[in-house]
Amino acid sequence: MPESVTDQFQPTERTRLRRLPKRAVFERNAVYEILDAGFICHVAYTIDGQPYCTPTSYWRDGDRLYWHGSSASRMLRAHAEGIPVCVTVTHVDGLVMARSGFHHSVNYRCVMAIGNASLVTDPAHKMAALKAFMDWVCPGRWDDVRGPNAQELKATKVLTMKLDEVSAKVRPGWPVDDEEDMDLPCWAGVVPLRQVMDPPLTDPDMRSAAEPPGYLEEIKRRLAPPPSD
Amino acid sequence: MPESVTDQFQPTERTRLRRLPKRAVFERNAVYEILDAGFICHVAYTIDGQPYCTPTSYWRDGDRLYWHGSSASRMLRAHAEGIPVCVTVTHVDGLVMARSGFHHSVNYRCVMAIGNASLVTDPAHKMAALKAFMDWVCPGRWDDVRGPNAQELKATKVLTMKLDEVSAKVRPGWPVDDEEDMDLPCWAGVVPLRQVMDPPLTDPDMRSAAEPPGYLEEIKRRLAPPPSD
Repeated sequence: MPESVTDQFQPTERTRLRRLPKRAVFERNAVYEILDAGFICHVAYTIDGQPYCTPTSYWRDGDRLYWHGSSASRMLRAHAEGIPVCVTVTHVDGLVMARSGFHHSVNYRCVMAIGNASLVTDPAHKMAALKAFMDWVCPGRWDDVRGPNAQELKATKVLTMKLDEVSAKVRPGWPVDDEEDMDLPCWAGVVPLRQVMDPPLTDPDMRSAAEPPGYLEEIKRRLAPPPSD
Repeated sequence: MPESVTDQFQPTERTRLRRLPKRAVFERNAVYEILDAGFICHVAYTIDGQPYCTPTSYWRDGDRLYWHGSSASRMLRAHAEGIPVCVTVTHVDGLVMARSGFHHSVNYRCVMAIGNASLVTDPAHKMAALKAFMDWVCPGRWDDVRGPNAQELKATKVLTMKLDEVSAKVRPGWPVDDEEDMDLPCWAGVVPLRQVMDPPLTDPDMRSAAEPPGYLEEIKRRLAPPPSD
């Protein structure tokens, strides 16, 4: 790993968990694992005093997060100015059904990264970043598609932020009920939820016959496996 | 519907879609449908100039969104003060694989609601809201569990926001490629993604034998069906 990268993220006043600190995760590899299991982040940013929360695709390359969008997008233009942002990636793993209403909960894995984004302006870095995006979502795909031309590159902004001020929070496992509720006859447990990929659907406008390429199966590796009980 | 509720949300300067306005949805029922298919929202809010993006459970009751949390939570205390927030609910429906890198996309449904939350202080409203939460996630469950006691109610803050300044954005369907790319041999189509519920897992600490209650199946009705090709 490069010199500046540590195995642990350092909690700051803004990322330390005030509540339920036992759920906090600051290990770099655990944070990367959560990020690498997602397709969509939510980015919070403030314009004219109003916070916005926008879902967008993202990718990770080493110790950096990236996202992209239209050069015409107000959000992207604001991010490119280096305003403070918060990027959050969340996976919902299940509904926790306790014996009391109060102890119902959600099983989840979540990473929150705060900082200031910067615009990727170097053409080689920008092209490499877009290739890294596709390799990250679906390795093998880049070689099959028409790559970006000059006009498309101009129409696309790529933002990056170093993963520096980062925290993760994970809630796994069973309900945690009060001892005095344990004898209640109420069923308790977990209702597992997860994201699945269904078989690829071929565009009806395909002009040459083609089967879905095998590399699409790689996408499944990003998804959580079914629960083993 | 009450007098103040219209069939359409009125776009404002902050919620109109500047880009790709064809993807905008302002019909109230369509917005409700997206909200009612989710378990987790992301709330954006600003503290000391830094935006944060926090995932949390939410529920809808009529024309209001609700969320809740610990009275000790810094986020909840900030929201209770009526600071501006943005609540976003997103469903990822698939990866759109086009013939060019540029036209790759994501199929999704997303609602963004902005405004100022207020604290539910009236005890009867608060209790009704918590019951509505459970009925919304899992109808039938409330009658089985121990309801909240005075101490738990004190430890819980409930926030509400009227659904007023709201927009939704939906990207369905096939890749949209440039005409000059249509003859490329590259496979194009959609990789469907969706959230599924696996069979409920019973808490190993159950002290009385109990099968998972049938009402848990109701949770599946919130989830998108498999794609029909």
